[in-house]
Amino acid sequence: MRVLSGTRPTGKLHLGNLLGALENFKKLQGEEAFFMIADWHALTTEYESHTQIADNVQEVVLDYLASGLDPEKCVIFVQSEVPEHVELAMILSMITPLGWLERNPTYKDQIREMKGKDLHTHGFLGYPVLQAADILLYKADKVPVGEDQLPHLELAREILRRFHFLYQVEIFPEPEAILTQTPKVPGTDGRKMSKSYNNCIYLADDSACVVQKAKQMLTDPARLRKTDKGNPDVCPVFAHHRLFNAEASAAVADECRSAQRGCVDCKLQVAAKMNEFLEPIRTRREEWKKQPEKIRAILDQGCRKARAVAQQTLLQTMRAVGLRK
Amino acid sequence: MRVLSGTRPTGKLHLGNLLGALENFKKLQGEEAFFMIADWHALTTEYESHTQIADNVQEVVLDYLASGLDPEKCVIFVQSEVPEHVELAMILSMITPLGWLERNPTYKDQIREMKGKDLHTHGFLGYPVLQAADILLYKADKVPVGEDQLPHLELAREILRRFHFLYQVEIFPEPEAILTQTPKVPGTDGRKMSKSYNNCIYLADDSACVVQKAKQMLTDPARLRKTDKGNPDVCPVFAHHRLFNAEASAAVADECRSAQRGCVDCKLQVAAKMNEFLEPIRTRREEWKKQPEKIRAILDQGCRKARAVAQQTLLQTMRAVGLRK
Repeated sequence: MRVLSGTRPTGKLHLGNLLGALENFKKLQGEEAFFMIADWHALTTEYESHTQIADNVQEVVLDYLASGLDPEKCVIFVQSEVPEHVELAMILSMITPLGWLERNPTYKDQIREMKGKDLHTHGFLGYPVLQAADILLYKADKVPVGEDQLPHLELAREILRRFHFLYQVEIFPEPEAILTQTPKVPGTDGRKMSKSYNNCIYLADDSACVVQKAKQMLTDPARLRKTDKGNPDVCPVFAHHRLFNAEASAAVADECRSAQRGCVDCKLQVAAKMNEFLEPIRTRREEWKKQPEKIRAILDQGCRKARAVAQQTLLQTMRAVGLRK
Repeated sequence: MRVLSGTRPTGKLHLGNLLGALENFKKLQGEEAFFMIADWHALTTEYESHTQIADNVQEVVLDYLASGLDPEKCVIFVQSEVPEHVELAMILSMITPLGWLERNPTYKDQIREMKGKDLHTHGFLGYPVLQAADILLYKADKVPVGEDQLPHLELAREILRRFHFLYQVEIFPEPEAILTQTPKVPGTDGRKMSKSYNNCIYLADDSACVVQKAKQMLTDPARLRKTDKGNPDVCPVFAHHRLFNAEASAAVADECRSAQRGCVDCKLQVAAKMNEFLEPIRTRREEWKKQPEKIRAILDQGCRKARAVAQQTLLQTMRAVGLRK
């Protein structure tokens, strides 16, 4: 089994990324697992925002290492340091009909969602082609993704089938999704935790900051006074009890429903549990932060390992299309 | 002055390429001149044709060297051996509006012209973006092109202006066309000499083949018998007299108009002149053909020289967009 997945470096990672993606990455270590920091993909949507993508790459590496990814058990690398990604994407773009990309449902969704960003560019339209190249370059057969990425994976399969058909070769295995059990992680405002909603608790937040953010969390809007009975099912704070205080969550729910616990205490309690969970991650993050040379060495090693595979696949592909003998 | 131009390796080069492009390349040697064999561009239109583009690359190198390009005075290299081309193209594609590409007049023309080829692909739409990257990568300020390529050059300028505007930097000089005085070189059927019309005389054709092709050339269609007076102005054979037998062409025209020369003799005479012109090129071509290692060394050297410039520009560009510190 060979696995490829990645993270767009648009900022520090938050609890949603941790529980949704990183925890699954950790389980896949020991397989041939390639985890890339997809800086090219960040550029597709952030090209106008003057973000220092390179800085965000460093934050994501710190978050990767802090959350327990082990560079000896998986390959951590930066996408733009492996030029074969864009080279394979160029080949695939030659055979990818525009209609496939224009009809891609997530394409239209994202253009609608990301208001204020001009995404009618050649690069953004080609996002799924680059993603296909990412996967095919490593001949990954398993791709841990969220449900929203399934259309992209289907497109990658269609592109590779067209490639195999056009050139009468079989180079790439058909990649299958590992649908990650992403527990819903609500942000402080109850919506999905997402950087663009500004409702995140970051792995790098210190404990005071976590307490502060927990205090600002929305709760059951119908519970106005401490003596009102609460409904934990609609309370973001309770959702976090489920995630970080699981063994006590039944009791918490009971106390909430019977108005035996107040929201302030409830928030402080969940903040304490979150901090308990985050503390070792934070400690490791601080440790890694002091060792930029070691991180550079990890990325260099990852780049070497990734390119060793990528160069072989690219050569095979170039031969198939006639660019190399 | 820095010059970038190139040739799509879709086959051997013919007299039209020689007089239209290569003769101009030769004049630009000694400047900082980069001449690339644009194999990625060949793939945009040939992806379905199972052409061995790599073989055609070799033919074009032979034609370059045979026609007198001197690898000590200019940089001859293969586009796909310099990955920075696709990397810069990827960056530029992020900022290039789809509308600019869709409205590109040559895009529509080519889709119409190349019937039977499915060019509704993401790669073909991005052709001018890659071309912009080719030019900007070397910070070329002069680009020898034919008139048909002017819209692409204008697009390259628009892309670089947008880049400078978005990132508030000035990296690239605005490239200007050197409009090559391309003498019209008709093919054997009187249309423009072009591989797709199958009407070419190739640099690699031997002398018997040139005679054969000259014999098959169309002439003034109104001149049915040798005793009829001819009109050299509509005769492809005469056009070749002008090119390869210039000093005698006035006399040839007179003799044609007064029916003093027959078409067969006229063709044989022009074939002899063509062979005279082609003979040293053919000899050099045969010599180079025996030295594949030397050719590989020339391309390796070209690749090194090209990358030395390309890597610097790419790094500057990556820094501007935030991908590198």
